[in-house]
Amino acid sequence: MQAHASRQPRTLFLDTHDVARLIGILGLPACLRGLVDTLRADYLRWPEFDKEARIAAYTAQGTIELMPITDGTHYSFKCVNGHPGNGRYGLPTVMAMGALLDCDTGMIRLLSELTLSTALRTAAMSALAAQVLARRDSHSMALIGNGAQSDFQALAFACLLGVRDLRLYDVDRSASERLARNLAAAELPGRALSVRICESTAQAVRGADIVTTVTAFQGQTRVLDDSLVEPGMHLNAVGGDCPGKTELDPDILRRADVFVEFPPQTRKEGEVQQMAADFPVTELWRVLAGDAPGRARADQVTLFDSVGFALEDYSALRFLQAQAQARQVGTWVDVTPGQADPRDLYGWLQGELQGLAALAL
Amino acid sequence: MQAHASRQPRTLFLDTHDVARLIGILGLPACLRGLVDTLRADYLRWPEFDKEARIAAYTAQGTIELMPITDGTHYSFKCVNGHPGNGRYGLPTVMAMGALLDCDTGMIRLLSELTLSTALRTAAMSALAAQVLARRDSHSMALIGNGAQSDFQALAFACLLGVRDLRLYDVDRSASERLARNLAAAELPGRALSVRICESTAQAVRGADIVTTVTAFQGQTRVLDDSLVEPGMHLNAVGGDCPGKTELDPDILRRADVFVEFPPQTRKEGEVQQMAADFPVTELWRVLAGDAPGRARADQVTLFDSVGFALEDYSALRFLQAQAQARQVGTWVDVTPGQADPRDLYGWLQGELQGLAALAL
Repeated sequence: MQAHASRQPRTLFLDTHDVARLIGILGLPACLRGLVDTLRADYLRWPEFDKEARIAAYTAQGTIELMPITDGTHYSFKCVNGHPGNGRYGLPTVMAMGALLDCDTGMIRLLSELTLSTALRTAAMSALAAQVLARRDSHSMALIGNGAQSDFQALAFACLLGVRDLRLYDVDRSASERLARNLAAAELPGRALSVRICESTAQAVRGADIVTTVTAFQGQTRVLDDSLVEPGMHLNAVGGDCPGKTELDPDILRRADVFVEFPPQTRKEGEVQQMAADFPVTELWRVLAGDAPGRARADQVTLFDSVGFALEDYSALRFLQAQAQARQVGTWVDVTPGQADPRDLYGWLQGELQGLAALAL
Repeated sequence: MQAHASRQPRTLFLDTHDVARLIGILGLPACLRGLVDTLRADYLRWPEFDKEARIAAYTAQGTIELMPITDGTHYSFKCVNGHPGNGRYGLPTVMAMGALLDCDTGMIRLLSELTLSTALRTAAMSALAAQVLARRDSHSMALIGNGAQSDFQALAFACLLGVRDLRLYDVDRSASERLARNLAAAELPGRALSVRICESTAQAVRGADIVTTVTAFQGQTRVLDDSLVEPGMHLNAVGGDCPGKTELDPDILRRADVFVEFPPQTRKEGEVQQMAADFPVTELWRVLAGDAPGRARADQVTLFDSVGFALEDYSALRFLQAQAQARQVGTWVDVTPGQADPRDLYGWLQGELQGLAALAL
């Protein structure tokens, strides 16, 4: 990288260390709260967005997806993978990066890591949905699947929903032990968090107000059987998020009220891929806007069939951009040539080469 | 950015200065030759690629597009805009960035500017097509539209096709003067280049072996009228590249043999959007592979209806990656968390925060 002329149009670049630092400055609870506020504000503008289901490439080892969205003022995209076998390379299952552009000019204003940001925004989105779908008196949550995303789910529900009784279950007990260790060390505002490792899904789920499923199982499995679901539960189904990958017994879908992000995508990727194309779902934005009921009765079973939608990355990128600029975190990089004459790209290149030649003298 | 642990999976980042430096090291002719070789090799593997038309968002001021492609080993995407009014902000009409990922893991190996690279690969692609479609004895080219892309087209045809007689025309004479100045200063291997600014398209085209149209006109215009097209000409139509934007009289399409990149995309975006859905076109890769005839007769009119396909950015990114690594150009950045335990993203975050706290002490 090189010194830039004053006309250089610059792009803010946030690497993983920068995003970690932002979280450190803000504190994780404030960060989650800020994300929930941004998500709510953007979901309330739902009709303003030009939306489409993500564009996926499927290969032998996993998927790579592009998730674009625009409101006519900003355009964002995320590039994200899902590779369940990545552990053998020492790499996370899910990794991501993304960008935020101005629609007026097409210029890239922000390039950012989105691995950490995706974990945060997914947890914040789950919390936002639960705020309108879970019973107000919810204080216990079963957390089924204790991988990389589970810490963020646990902390989001503890900080934002008042959950203080967590029951963990994973087919790999060491995963639950890892999660329990992290939660024991986490500094949470207010009351203490009770964390218990369970021997089965049934034990974890019994009597819980909220059940979060976030396993990495491939294929159509039944992480949660209908017989375990009790009246009044809110189900936060995070793990079933691509074609052929579901976590719930379809009988659960038949008796729950199902809330989704963007129906054309969720019908392909979510739990409702198991149901007919006209299976009734409610768009979550309508509940947030007061256009559709959320939870109507204490004994109702509500289900947020979460798959992760491009709007949530738009919100995360906007939040990161605002916070990073306010706190001067990140690096300014040049991905756009700073041309004296916008029509003269070749002339700009010649100027660069002359500059390099002068440096070499 | 911060020092990294040894397990950190890193991404090579090339900004505009890095790509300019690479061109400086290689020299523009060698760079164009290397790109043509990479493009040819990748086009010969055409059936191995999972292809789709680009995904466009249209806003009041322009378009923003994502162009993904994969061969099952690597995955690439480009994000590119087209904003004809950008001059008033001092910004180029077309700007781009992209990434190259491993399909095995989904990890991002290369993040790169693609503004300069798009100009180079578009010119290299035009030259590759002309190598099989233009008459072997071609030495003159009319260049209609003298904006940012035109310098690269002129130099690619001079270096790779033996063009030595260039006739320039633009509705804005100052654009032609700018281009002529740049070409006069360019150091080209071998013979001299004769460059003439013409008063009209007709004057530029008359007797030319090759006609390149690369205007920024919006809408369906007729930059080239059928009456100007002579037997034996090769037409390199670069400017018509999105729905509603064409440069050629449809009568030209009726009498020329039309060669395209990826028919599903070209039928939406290219000159052939003016024709019926079953209008006959030949895929260029078949000509390169020897499966379909290119130019068969000296008096045939050939037309490369170029719109720019994702494979060309894949080739450009692979070429940039190889050259940058060999010459140690670029910066290594961390867009992926370097987790000790791939399942423990939260633990990695805590480690980062402890590291930051230690630095602050």
